[in-house]
Amino acid sequence: MTGRRILIIKLTGKAFNNAEIIKSHIDTYKGIIGQGYKIAIIAGGGEIARRYIDIARRAGLQSNYWLDMLGIMASRLNAYLLQSLLRPMSYPRVPAGLEEVVEGLDRYPVIVIGGLIPGQSTASVAVEVAEALGSQIVVDYSVIGMVYDRDPAKYPDAKPIKEISAKELIELLEQSSEPGHYEFFDKKALTLAVRSRIKIYVTSYKEPGSIWTILSNGNPGTIIYPE
Amino acid sequence: MTGRRILIIKLTGKAFNNAEIIKSHIDTYKGIIGQGYKIAIIAGGGEIARRYIDIARRAGLQSNYWLDMLGIMASRLNAYLLQSLLRPMSYPRVPAGLEEVVEGLDRYPVIVIGGLIPGQSTASVAVEVAEALGSQIVVDYSVIGMVYDRDPAKYPDAKPIKEISAKELIELLEQSSEPGHYEFFDKKALTLAVRSRIKIYVTSYKEPGSIWTILSNGNPGTIIYPE
Amino acid sequence: MTGRRILIIKLTGKAFNNAEIIKSHIDTYKGIIGQGYKIAIIAGGGEIARRYIDIARRAGLQSNYWLDMLGIMASRLNAYLLQSLLRPMSYPRVPAGLEEVVEGLDRYPVIVIGGLIPGQSTASVAVEVAEALGSQIVVDYSVIGMVYDRDPAKYPDAKPIKEISAKELIELLEQSSEPGHYEFFDKKALTLAVRSRIKIYVTSYKEPGSIWTILSNGNPGTIIYPE
Amino acid sequence: MTGRRILIIKLTGKAFNNAEIIKSHIDTYKGIIGQGYKIAIIAGGGEIARRYIDIARRAGLQSNYWLDMLGIMASRLNAYLLQSLLRPMSYPRVPAGLEEVVEGLDRYPVIVIGGLIPGQSTASVAVEVAEALGSQIVVDYSVIGMVYDRDPAKYPDAKPIKEISAKELIELLEQSSEPGHYEFFDKKALTLAVRSRIKIYVTSYKEPGSIWTILSNGNPGTIIYPE
Amino acid sequence: MTGRRILIIKLTGKAFNNAEIIKSHIDTYKGIIGQGYKIAIIAGGGEIARRYIDIARRAGLQSNYWLDMLGIMASRLNAYLLQSLLRPMSYPRVPAGLEEVVEGLDRYPVIVIGGLIPGQSTASVAVEVAEALGSQIVVDYSVIGMVYDRDPAKYPDAKPIKEISAKELIELLEQSSEPGHYEFFDKKALTLAVRSRIKIYVTSYKEPGSIWTILSNGNPGTIIYPE
Amino acid sequence: MTGRRILIIKLTGKAFNNAEIIKSHIDTYKGIIGQGYKIAIIAGGGEIARRYIDIARRAGLQSNYWLDMLGIMASRLNAYLLQSLLRPMSYPRVPAGLEEVVEGLDRYPVIVIGGLIPGQSTASVAVEVAEALGSQIVVDYSVIGMVYDRDPAKYPDAKPIKEISAKELIELLEQSSEPGHYEFFDKKALTLAVRSRIKIYVTSYKEPGSIWTILSNGNPGTIIYPE
Repeated sequence: MTGRRILIIKLTGKAFNNAEIIKSHIDTYKGIIGQGYKIAIIAGGGEIARRYIDIARRAGLQSNYWLDMLGIMASRLNAYLLQSLLRPMSYPRVPAGLEEVVEGLDRYPVIVIGGLIPGQSTASVAVEVAEALGSQIVVDYSVIGMVYDRDPAKYPDAKPIKEISAKELIELLEQSSEPGHYEFFDKKALTLAVRSRIKIYVTSYKEPGSIWTILSNGNPGTIIYPE
Repeated sequence: MTGRRILIIKLTGKAFNNAEIIKSHIDTYKGIIGQGYKIAIIAGGGEIARRYIDIARRAGLQSNYWLDMLGIMASRLNAYLLQSLLRPMSYPRVPAGLEEVVEGLDRYPVIVIGGLIPGQSTASVAVEVAEALGSQIVVDYSVIGMVYDRDPAKYPDAKPIKEISAKELIELLEQSSEPGHYEFFDKKALTLAVRSRIKIYVTSYKEPGSIWTILSNGNPGTIIYPE
Repeated sequence: MTGRRILIIKLTGKAFNNAEIIKSHIDTYKGIIGQGYKIAIIAGGGEIARRYIDIARRAGLQSNYWLDMLGIMASRLNAYLLQSLLRPMSYPRVPAGLEEVVEGLDRYPVIVIGGLIPGQSTASVAVEVAEALGSQIVVDYSVIGMVYDRDPAKYPDAKPIKEISAKELIELLEQSSEPGHYEFFDKKALTLAVRSRIKIYVTSYKEPGSIWTILSNGNPGTIIYPE
Repeated sequence: MTGRRILIIKLTGKAFNNAEIIKSHIDTYKGIIGQGYKIAIIAGGGEIARRYIDIARRAGLQSNYWLDMLGIMASRLNAYLLQSLLRPMSYPRVPAGLEEVVEGLDRYPVIVIGGLIPGQSTASVAVEVAEALGSQIVVDYSVIGMVYDRDPAKYPDAKPIKEISAKELIELLEQSSEPGHYEFFDKKALTLAVRSRIKIYVTSYKEPGSIWTILSNGNPGTIIYPE
Repeated sequence: MTGRRILIIKLTGKAFNNAEIIKSHIDTYKGIIGQGYKIAIIAGGGEIARRYIDIARRAGLQSNYWLDMLGIMASRLNAYLLQSLLRPMSYPRVPAGLEEVVEGLDRYPVIVIGGLIPGQSTASVAVEVAEALGSQIVVDYSVIGMVYDRDPAKYPDAKPIKEISAKELIELLEQSSEPGHYEFFDKKALTLAVRSRIKIYVTSYKEPGSIWTILSNGNPGTIIYPE
Repeated sequence: MTGRRILIIKLTGKAFNNAEIIKSHIDTYKGIIGQGYKIAIIAGGGEIARRYIDIARRAGLQSNYWLDMLGIMASRLNAYLLQSLLRPMSYPRVPAGLEEVVEGLDRYPVIVIGGLIPGQSTASVAVEVAEALGSQIVVDYSVIGMVYDRDPAKYPDAKPIKEISAKELIELLEQSSEPGHYEFFDKKALTLAVRSRIKIYVTSYKEPGSIWTILSNGNPGTIIYPE
C-alpha cells in the first residue's frame, strides 16, 4: 500500500462531549475505509484531560511529567472509545508508541491513538504518525476550524488564513507548554512536516465530511503547506 | 512480608469528583505505608465510566464486552491519577492483570488497579487481589458506607447491617450485570472471600481515616465475615 | 466477519488422556475452519491440573490463588498441545487474557486458550470469550455430554435435560469453588450468556462431530438458552 | 552480589513424580537462600514432557520444533510448581529467555526456569544460565546421580566417574537430539562451561542435601571440571 | 503455506560494509517475494560486532555472556537496516526469539533476525529458524562462498567441497566459541538440520542471485545434505 | 529518593570511538553511584549512527522515519555497551520509552538509554528524562565542551559562553532536523527545562571528572539556566 492511501486524522478532545458528533465521525471514517483508505486517528484529550490534570494539581501533584502523562492517559480513553466503535476494523488497543502504530496499521485498516509523550501536543503526534506511516495528509479536526493570525478567542479582529507554509506558521506561533493547553503544532512537528512533505488540513470537528472535500482537492479550512 | 501486612483498599469512583477527598485519601495511604504496610488500591470507575459507556451507547456501540472494557479503561484513568499522586512509592503503571499485580507489589509499597475483566465489579476485583496477595483485609470505601438489607436509595426503611457473613450476604444480594452498574460484591467474589478467609470492611469514602479504626479492630461501617 | 461465523468450543481436560480423541477433534476443527468459520477453543485442565494441584498441596502450598494458577497453567499446556496440532492456522501462543484473544482471532482462523483467572471454570471462560468475540454459540464438549438435574455420578436416577434456560440453570446449580473441581458454568458466566444472547450446547467430548449437528440446528445433548 | 554467591540448580523432571521429594528440595532451597545465596533453578520436563510429546505425535504432529516446544512448555509447568512453592521469595513467573532470567534474579533471591529453546537439554540451559548470571557452580540433581563411562541402564558394568574434565566428557558423550530424550549436557554447554570456568556437580535428585556437601567443597557424585 | 515456500537466508555481517551489495540483496529478496516466497533473513554481526566486543573488552568487560550479547545486539542493528529497506513487506521489528519469528512470518512475507542467544553462531540461528518455520532450505551467503576441507585463509591448499553430508561436516569442523568468531554451523545446528531434513546451500555474499540458481536446483557453492 | 539525588548524563556518540574514554567514564559513574546517586545516562549515536544512516540511504531508504529509527537503534547499541560495563548495578536492557526509564531507575542505581523517538536529539531525550525522573541536573558530555555563540567548526571567531538562560539559547539556536545531525537541544527540550527547573551543564566528553566539579557547584564548561 502506498503512503498516499493512508490518511492521518487528528480529532479534538472537544468532540467527545457530544455523542452525535462522535457518531457522525465514525460513520465518515467507515466510509473512508470503505473506499480502500487506511486511517490513523489521533484523539485529543479535551475536557477530561483538563479535568484530571486539575484534580491532580489540587490534590498536590506538582511534576509536569506526571501531569502530562495524566493528560495522555485521558486522551487514550478517548481513543479507546473511538476504537471500540470502529471494531472489528480497528486495532483493538490504543498503542503506546510509534512502533506499535506502524505494526498495528500494517494489519488493520484503522488504528486510534492518544498522546504519546509528555510535553507534546496530540496535533504534533499526528505529524509524527504521518511520517512514520509514510502518509502525506494530516486532517486536523479542530475546535476553531481554521488557522488565524492570532488567537481568535482573545482578539475579535483575528484574521483567518486559507493557506500558509509550515515555515511561516512556525514564525507565527508562540505556544505555551503548560500541560493540557497544547492547541497547535509545535515547531518540531512543523519541521517534520516540511522534511517529509506532509500537508496539513485544518478544519472544524463539527464537519466530519471535510475529509471528502480534502480528497477532492478542496480546502475546508486552512491548508498548511510543507514548505 | 506476611499477608497480614498487606491491605487491600477499594475506593469508589465517586471519590474522583472531589480533589479534597482524593487528597485526604492520599495522605491516609501515605500514613499507612509509613507504618510498614503494603497496600493495593482498586479504583472504581464512577461517573466517568458511566459517562463514557453512555456516549459509546448513544454513538452506536452495542457489545457488552466493549462497553465493559470502556468502563474498565475509565477506572484505570482513576487508578492512574492515584498512582501519580503516590509516586515514587507506587508502581508506575496501572496493571492489566493479577500476575502483574503480584509482581508489582513485590517491588513497591503501593500499587493502584482499575477494573480487570468485563462483567466484574471493581469490588470483586478487590477480593481477587486480596487472595492473590495473601491479604485477609479488604477495605471497601463505598458511597453508602454500610451494607443495608435492601437498596437504601429506593427504600427509606432499609436497615443498616453492622456484621454479616459472606454466605448470608450472597443470599441477600440480587445484582444486575449491566455495564457500569455494579455496586456490590458478586457471588464469586464472596465465595473467594470465604475460601481464603478474607474479611471485608465496608465504610464511607468520605472517611479515609476508617482504615485506622479497622487496624485497631474497630468497625467503621459493616464487617463481612468470611463464613 | 460477523459474530455468527465465530464458534466457541470448550473441550474438557479429559480429552487429553486419549490421542485418538484429540486427533478426531483436530480433524473436525479443520473441517469447520475449511467451511469459513473462525473458532476459539478453550482447553480444560483435566487430570494434569488435578495432579499438579495435588502435588503442590502435598508439598505444602496453601494459597488458593497459586493452586488455581497452577491449574490454569496445566490447562494452558493442554491448549498448547492443540495449538501445535492446528498450525499454521492457529495463533502460535496460548493467550493470557481476553484482549490477546480478541487480537489473536482477528488474525488467525483459530486460537486456543486455557484458564484465564483464578476461581473461574474454563467453561466460564468460554462464555466470556464468546461475548468478547461477539459469538453467540458455545459448544461445550464435556465428560457427561448433557446437563442433568443433579450429579449423575452420585445419583443414578438423575434426569437428563434436553433444553433449559440459563436462568433456570442458575437456580439448579450449586457449585463448589475448590481449585480443580469446577465442572459447570458459574452464575456470572450464565448471566453474561443471557445479557449477550449466547446459546450454549452441551455435548460429549467423545463425539467431536456434534458441532456439525449444531450447525444444522440439531441438539446433540443439552441446549442452554440465553433467557 | 558477586557471582560466587549465585548457585545454579538443575532438577530432573523425575522429581515431579513425588511430592515428598519436591517438598524436601523446597526446604533445602529455603535453607540455602537463608544463608544469603541467590539461586536459579532449572526444572526438567520428565514424564509429563514425554507424555505430551507422545500424545502430540500420535495425534499427528511431525514438526520437531513444535514437539520440542511442547516439551519445553511441560518443563515450564514443573518450573511453575516450584516457583509457587517458593513464594514470596521467587520471581512470580517462569521466564522465557535469558534476559528475563538476568533481570528476574536481580530482584528476587530465587527464579525457576524450564526449557528455553528447542533442541537443547535443560541441563544445557543450566550452564547458559550460569554464564549469564556469572555463577561458577551448577548442581545437577539427576536421576542417576553420577556420570558413568557409558549408559548404566544398558551396561551393568558401566563405571562411575568421580571427576572428569569437560573436554574429556565431550569426547565421551554421544547424544541423540530426539525431543524428550536429552539426558546430558551437550557439547555447546560444556564448551561454555570451559570458557566461563563453570564447575558442574552431578548428584542424585533423591539427595537434596548434596548442595550443602558441595558448599563444603565435598563431592556428592561427579565433578565436571571446566577444563 | 507449505514449508517448501519458505526460504531461510543467512547473510554474513561482511555484506554490511558495502551499500551496493546490500542494495543488490534487497533487490533480489524483493524478486523472490514477488514470486510468492516468504523469507526469513538472518543477519550476521560482522565488523561492527567485532568492534563493539573489542571496545567492551578493552574497557574492562570480562563476562562472555555480555560480550556475546553485545555481538548479538550489533547483528540486530544489521538486521534492522535490512528490515527498514524491505518495508512495508517486512515485520517492522527485529525479533528476540523463535516464537516471535514464527508469529512474525505468519503475518509478513519477510522477517529479519540477528543473533538470538549467546554462544551460538548466526549460521546456527538460521537452521533453528528453518526448523521452526518448517522450511527445508537455508541459503548461507558467506564470505568464502564454499565449504573447504580446512580454513582456506590459513591453508592455501585447502580444497573446496561441492557436496557434503551434515554428519561428515560435523566431523570436519572444529570450531571455537570465542565471542565474535563463529564462522560455521555448530554441531547442534547440523544435528537439527539432519533431524528436520534441512538442506544448506553455501554461496558467496557477493552473488545475491545464487538464490535463483538454488531455486532452479543448481549448486552455486556447496550443498550440505541433511544426512 | 529525592530528585536532587538523581543525575542525568548525556554522553556524545563520539566517546564510543575510544575504549579508554569509555573506561574512564565507567569508572567515574561507578564513583558517583558509590556516593549514593542514581544516574540515567543517554548515549548518543555518533559515527555508527551516521554510518548506518548513510548505508541505508545509499541502498535506497528514503523515509525520514526509518532513517531516524536506524540512528536510534545505533545509539541503543552504544547504550547497551555502557549498560553491560555497569552490570550488575545497571538495568539490564536499553529502555524503549520514558515509562520504562521511570520504572527501571526505581529499581537500579543506573539505567542507560539511547534515542527514544524520531526527529529528536539525544540531548533532548536527556531533558525529558530529567523531567520524568524529577532530576534538576543534566550533564551534557559533548564534543565541543561548551556552548558557543555560533558553530565554532565553521567560525573560528565563535565565542564561548559560560552561562546562558534557556530562553536566550532558544533564540540563538537554529537547528536542522536532518537524521544524524542533531547537535543541540531543541526548543521543546529547552522549554521543558524551563518549566521543570532543570539546569544543563555542557562540558567535554574527554573530561568525565567534570561531574565532580558540577557536584561541587563548579562550572566545567557552560551552564544553561532554566529561565
